[in-house]
Amino acid sequence: RSLATSARQSLKIGMIPADGIGHEVLPVSKAALQALGSSIPRLEFIDLLAGFEHFTKTGTALPEETVEALQKECDCAMFGAVSSPSRKVAGYSSPIVALRKKMDLYANIRPVTSVSPNPGEKPAVDLVVVRENTECLYVKDEKQTVGPHGKEARATRLITERASRRIGEMAFKIALNRPRKHITIIHKSNVLSITDGLFRETVRAVPALHGADGRYDSVTVTEQLVDSAVYRLFREPHIYDVMVAPNLYGDIISDAAAALVGSLGLVPSVNAGDTFVMGEPVHGSAPDIAGQNIANPLAAMRSAALMLRHLGYGEGGDRIEGAIDEVIREGRCLTPDLGGKSKTTEVVEEVVKRI
Amino acid sequence: RSLATSARQSLKIGMIPADGIGHEVLPVSKAALQALGSSIPRLEFIDLLAGFEHFTKTGTALPEETVEALQKECDCAMFGAVSSPSRKVAGYSSPIVALRKKMDLYANIRPVTSVSPNPGEKPAVDLVVVRENTECLYVKDEKQTVGPHGKEARATRLITERASRRIGEMAFKIALNRPRKHITIIHKSNVLSITDGLFRETVRAVPALHGADGRYDSVTVTEQLVDSAVYRLFREPHIYDVMVAPNLYGDIISDAAAALVGSLGLVPSVNAGDTFVMGEPVHGSAPDIAGQNIANPLAAMRSAALMLRHLGYGEGGDRIEGAIDEVIREGRCLTPDLGGKSKTTEVVEEVVKRI
Ligand SMILES: CC(C)[C@H](C(=O)O)[C@@H](O)C(=O)O
Ligand SMILES: CC(C)[C@H](C(=O)O)[C@@H](O)C(=O)O
Repeated sequence: RSLATSARQSLKIGMIPADGIGHEVLPVSKAALQALGSSIPRLEFIDLLAGFEHFTKTGTALPEETVEALQKECDCAMFGAVSSPSRKVAGYSSPIVALRKKMDLYANIRPVTSVSPNPGEKPAVDLVVVRENTECLYVKDEKQTVGPHGKEARATRLITERASRRIGEMAFKIALNRPRKHITIIHKSNVLSITDGLFRETVRAVPALHGADGRYDSVTVTEQLVDSAVYRLFREPHIYDVMVAPNLYGDIISDAAAALVGSLGLVPSVNAGDTFVMGEPVHGSAPDIAGQNIANPLAAMRSAALMLRHLGYGEGGDRIEGAIDEVIREGRCLTPDLGGKSKTTEVVEEVVKRI
Repeated sequence: RSLATSARQSLKIGMIPADGIGHEVLPVSKAALQALGSSIPRLEFIDLLAGFEHFTKTGTALPEETVEALQKECDCAMFGAVSSPSRKVAGYSSPIVALRKKMDLYANIRPVTSVSPNPGEKPAVDLVVVRENTECLYVKDEKQTVGPHGKEARATRLITERASRRIGEMAFKIALNRPRKHITIIHKSNVLSITDGLFRETVRAVPALHGADGRYDSVTVTEQLVDSAVYRLFREPHIYDVMVAPNLYGDIISDAAAALVGSLGLVPSVNAGDTFVMGEPVHGSAPDIAGQNIANPLAAMRSAALMLRHLGYGEGGDRIEGAIDEVIREGRCLTPDLGGKSKTTEVVEEVVKRI
């Protein structure tokens, strides 16, 4: 089956709030999808468990039933946020990292866009981080030994041609649909000449894979070392359009970019594979504000919109995003992270009204 | 021999301009050291070769003679900047990375401080990145194989207890000499529980190494995931005092911090070991502006000042830094990166006048 198809009768969405504010932003953001009414297929929400809180209760961070339900019953999913224990906890391992790999959601797509004061005006920041989502240091192949001077720990950083090619392909496809059609490859090949060398060469070679058909001829490609990319992101964010990066650099760069648009609470993502897509706000579980109904629900709602786009319902995505932009522009109903005084549920209500 | 001693008759400084603007900022910044006159020992400068340009001419990026001269003849050194080839070049490997390891300069100390408009006022950004300088992915243990789906490249990330302890110890010593005495440990142990787990636990354990003597009792310690550290660096830079980090995170974080103070051209560093110290501006070789006499010399001059401090000549360091702060505050003679129109050599002249 192809991911972007409108032939569905219904859309089954696995809902995994996980931890902290995930429990608040995910359930309420359902309302945005529901507000689209009959312009999208009938929605079915399936509540699923995962997270550090679930681990502390049951000893399992990502239950087999959750993965099975996603694989067998769901068309797509929404993920909230996970907490990280502040000390190593035996047997615990991040369920979001595991889920991305188990579902082969190889692309983490994170658009970071500021809302311009007037509709139609060009936003000051308008980029998308296309982050490889399955390998790099996230393979979690680590061990500790004892050497002559004490403990020694080693982790493997894996970069494969296959994963680099498919994330490169994704970056080119995304670039093609954007006005500027520009890709910046993020790497550190002045130190990691072999691993990052493979990443950058493979991404650069994507257009050639398609022989002489010239489909990516209109896309321009440059590259940037990760350290200087973060520097320039702060100083000249407008130079970036599509930033394609190995897993860890992508993690860091998307947080850096989020700082430019006012709040992590605004930045959505999807974890996309060839046959499944999972929306996920970029923010964390924010234990300090959990349970107070003040978490920003906009990243979760934007993630739902992004998920719809990837499923072929771009118009639905537009309606949710347009409503969110209006609420931000009006500036009357915003959560505290944006300098407002509104509650999570009030913001959702304002958005839903405008959909 | 101890590094900070005033028992020297003369100070032999190895000068390694390396590439690009390194050739401009390093030689002219000598003048700042010379301006200190008899308040420091007699200076001897020894010109040494290294860099990508040297590699293209000779096939060697870091000649044995350079390392030998540093080890046998020099008390300290100043390094300019290295260029990175834009494609993999067989046999080339970064000479700065090699030098840090060969000279066992295990701490890369990068103070990032804004200049407050009025002398005596608290600067808005006042932090120091204490970056581990010998391991992490910088061990450059990489290989490429071919698997069922094409090329596979692997790099080893090494974190040892020994290196984490000495960089931790350095961070505590530095924190003790700062008003806020606060350390933030930067890591990603929610993914790298073993390697970054070892780093964070080892740094946290530093005070306990000294038994009950309580020497670090006044230092407070928190920690932050590297992605959210970059985010918060942009949003609330004032929360940071000393940031201690494994090599790669330190590389990225110091560039991020540099963006907050106006220009990479302002940020100095030293590479410090137990018996040798090497000043090095944080900026790169900037081939786009090389040879035009417009590179900012202030980072190189501040690096010379920082080197002096580490050698026990704090007063000399103060005089150079004070003169630089004056020139920045006056705002009349600045290079283009700071919005000025002055030449590199003009800026040096203005600083030297004020020393
Ligand atoms: C929670 C953590 C494992 C995760 C990551 O590093 O990928 C998070 O930071 C993110 O960006 O989604
Ligand atoms: C040139 C490069 C190898 C170097 C590094 O990554 O350490 C540079 O970015 C730095 O920060 O000194």
